[in-house]
Amino acid sequence: MNTVTALPLPNLGLRRHALILAGGSGTRLWPMSRSTMPKQLLALNGEETLLQETARRLLPMVDSSRITTVTQDDHRFEVMGQLHGVAPALADRVLAEPLGRNTLPAIAWAVAGIARETPDALVGAFSSDHLVGYPEAFRAAWADAEVAAEAGYLTLFGMRPSEPATGFGYIEAGPPLMDGVQRVERFVEKPDRRTAEGFLKHGGYYWNGGMFVFRADRFMDLLQRHQPALAAAVMELAEGGGEPSPAEYAALPEVSIDHGLVERTEAVAVVPVEMEWSDLGSWEALYQARDKDSDGNAVKGPALPVESRRNLFWSDGGGLIAALGVEGMAVVQTRDATLVCPRERLADLKHLVARVCDRYPHLTEIHLTTHRPWGSYTILEEGPGYKIKRIMVKPGGRLSLQMHYHRSEHWVVIAGTARIVNGQEDVYLEENQSTYIAKTHCHRLENPGKIPLQIIEIQSGPYLEEDDIVRFEDTYGRS
Amino acid sequence: MNTVTALPLPNLGLRRHALILAGGSGTRLWPMSRSTMPKQLLALNGEETLLQETARRLLPMVDSSRITTVTQDDHRFEVMGQLHGVAPALADRVLAEPLGRNTLPAIAWAVAGIARETPDALVGAFSSDHLVGYPEAFRAAWADAEVAAEAGYLTLFGMRPSEPATGFGYIEAGPPLMDGVQRVERFVEKPDRRTAEGFLKHGGYYWNGGMFVFRADRFMDLLQRHQPALAAAVMELAEGGGEPSPAEYAALPEVSIDHGLVERTEAVAVVPVEMEWSDLGSWEALYQARDKDSDGNAVKGPALPVESRRNLFWSDGGGLIAALGVEGMAVVQTRDATLVCPRERLADLKHLVARVCDRYPHLTEIHLTTHRPWGSYTILEEGPGYKIKRIMVKPGGRLSLQMHYHRSEHWVVIAGTARIVNGQEDVYLEENQSTYIAKTHCHRLENPGKIPLQIIEIQSGPYLEEDDIVRFEDTYGRS
Repeated sequence: MNTVTALPLPNLGLRRHALILAGGSGTRLWPMSRSTMPKQLLALNGEETLLQETARRLLPMVDSSRITTVTQDDHRFEVMGQLHGVAPALADRVLAEPLGRNTLPAIAWAVAGIARETPDALVGAFSSDHLVGYPEAFRAAWADAEVAAEAGYLTLFGMRPSEPATGFGYIEAGPPLMDGVQRVERFVEKPDRRTAEGFLKHGGYYWNGGMFVFRADRFMDLLQRHQPALAAAVMELAEGGGEPSPAEYAALPEVSIDHGLVERTEAVAVVPVEMEWSDLGSWEALYQARDKDSDGNAVKGPALPVESRRNLFWSDGGGLIAALGVEGMAVVQTRDATLVCPRERLADLKHLVARVCDRYPHLTEIHLTTHRPWGSYTILEEGPGYKIKRIMVKPGGRLSLQMHYHRSEHWVVIAGTARIVNGQEDVYLEENQSTYIAKTHCHRLENPGKIPLQIIEIQSGPYLEEDDIVRFEDTYGRS
Repeated sequence: MNTVTALPLPNLGLRRHALILAGGSGTRLWPMSRSTMPKQLLALNGEETLLQETARRLLPMVDSSRITTVTQDDHRFEVMGQLHGVAPALADRVLAEPLGRNTLPAIAWAVAGIARETPDALVGAFSSDHLVGYPEAFRAAWADAEVAAEAGYLTLFGMRPSEPATGFGYIEAGPPLMDGVQRVERFVEKPDRRTAEGFLKHGGYYWNGGMFVFRADRFMDLLQRHQPALAAAVMELAEGGGEPSPAEYAALPEVSIDHGLVERTEAVAVVPVEMEWSDLGSWEALYQARDKDSDGNAVKGPALPVESRRNLFWSDGGGLIAALGVEGMAVVQTRDATLVCPRERLADLKHLVARVCDRYPHLTEIHLTTHRPWGSYTILEEGPGYKIKRIMVKPGGRLSLQMHYHRSEHWVVIAGTARIVNGQEDVYLEENQSTYIAKTHCHRLENPGKIPLQIIEIQSGPYLEEDDIVRFEDTYGRS
């Protein structure tokens, strides 16, 4: 047994890196999460999104210029926009996978890049869609894990289990390696209830929360040994500095870091952490994670529970939820869809979502609010021959120079200042001013100011779909 | 016993009148019904509102010029507009009470007017907020009741009870008077369950559905005998032809026709009717009255029940209701409020509504859609410094000539043709045209065309409440 005193590593300086995994997608939190807006991009825990909370959690430890985020191409601009809101430099270091290949290729691509710059970098890799409380405990565990990582271990955070959950992987901790760090004895993938109860009773078992710390060079060595093809591919990618084509990326093995690397490695360590943690993998997990009123109701948005207990009431733009005599129910409401389901049935939500996807596919794909690199728009109402949107353009944001064949547009500025190119005109409009974009007129909307620009757009015409757009020039490479 | 053959009265001609009672208010169907939009004004049963269905039910029997509707002042224009949609002449004969004084003053005021014109009129008086099926049975019963009314009886419709309901008054029928008509033995107000079960077992008991037929002169005689002050007041009102002041009307006794007149009268008859009937007095009554799917779910609007039974899912502009594993629940959703309540608790809805009224009073008072004599408007969104409305102006409708101190307005026509007075200008705008109304500019909006005019209004300014309006001239007497 080789126990050393776990003094935080001195003068880490440029060696500390962090990696945010923001590639997940799914509808387990439908109707909030949709295929174009997975849960890491939603504000499920507070004012900021889970991705933003994740980034903010890292900033006290590592400079924003050394935080790499990996996401999927579909969510690239939204991820960049959200990260920019936390610290502008974060948006400069976003890798976008053309498609998802599970966690190992994503991490490997990012680490290959870091290892090229800083072979002895100590990299912390973190999911972007989990809830983490007690940031001091998190930072202390990270520092402990770095000591083990420096000694050559792939080091995991182990969350002390609060209940015999059957939905997580467990880590059995072995003998101590150093202060706060134990060798990993074995991994147990999603045990049955009885086994999980035994783990809790026995002690020394931890939830695997998908947080890792390792040295970049050590990671690449292990990758070359256990996944040589993947190692070669990501090193070539890092060398070139560009982004892989969908075909190139699809050729990579689809494998998780656990199965593909961690479980094949001898020198794996765990740092047990006492912190609030949830993977927020279901509405039930969200209910468990949130504060409750004295009747056990977890509430977000306007809700009025009367003689109602143990409910989750979640209103996101759908108005007041008023409940009488309701027990153990989840009611989740957005502007265009409401979920009603007893909490104990939430595990089967995917069946319902499949049915929704069948009959109302747009309700599982998109929100009424759509995010774009320049800002976002919300559809306020649609009717025969017209569509009304509220458009928000970020400071400095600029829509493409574009033209529509089938629709004219009326724009009214309700906040901020707009610069508008409209045919031969180039004008500034401020609050309470309006303009008219005739169909086939080339036009462009831009926010030259320092506060968000908001305009109301009223589209008029026989065909009002998003694909009636001809882009002539685009700041974001979409023309 | 004086039995006569009940041949329908021949050549009734101008003697047949009808009276629609549309004065009810209440929030027993919240969030659909609100104080400014009670249930008779809502489309709870089909495409038309209950008031419109009531009027349409009468038209095969009586000319629209002999149908009088009594409502309250708050709902006058909405009632007129709805009636106009069924038959224009109906809107010409609307009496608006300044405040509610229960049913007898309302009926008495209307009957006094009818009796002045046609003393021997045979008047059928009907609630406007009930569901009635089998129109042939309804018309046959009306004809039977007229025979008894002609013979001097206050005649009620008696609905054969389908269950031992405890929420209705019961009529015990006595010996037959003529074909299809029996003397009333006694009235039993809301019996307990056991008593009601006894009534059903025994037979000969009927629900009192608040439908009456009587001769106008006979009614006035009875009124003079039992309510002399009320009789004098309504005869004076009918004489003058005007509308009572709130003070005058408040001086009338607040009493129902049942307590104030029917129960004090000897010659009362009942016509048992076999027809679908519901007072729609609660969401549970509405659930019972509606068609169900094979799992017993009653659904209105987009809803997707999966493994869910015996529910009421009602979506009115609030998007899809998707339910998994839900049993016996009522979920009623509008754009700004959702009710969730087990069906068996719906009888206590008033407690919840009282709490809503306390904390979110606007949600029990008004809908996002407000009806006006000229049409309606719907608030699509409000935010700091702006408010967006969709405004519908009926053909021929004309808003007042008005001015605002604090807001400017942008108008975009999305359907129909508008005539717009704006300061010194007087212009026509068609689809996809817009204009700007600066604050303090006198303006007026009118629909000179034959189809509804729809415009989107974007208000801009520091104060956007409805009371920032100076009306200079108004077609509807509001200036």
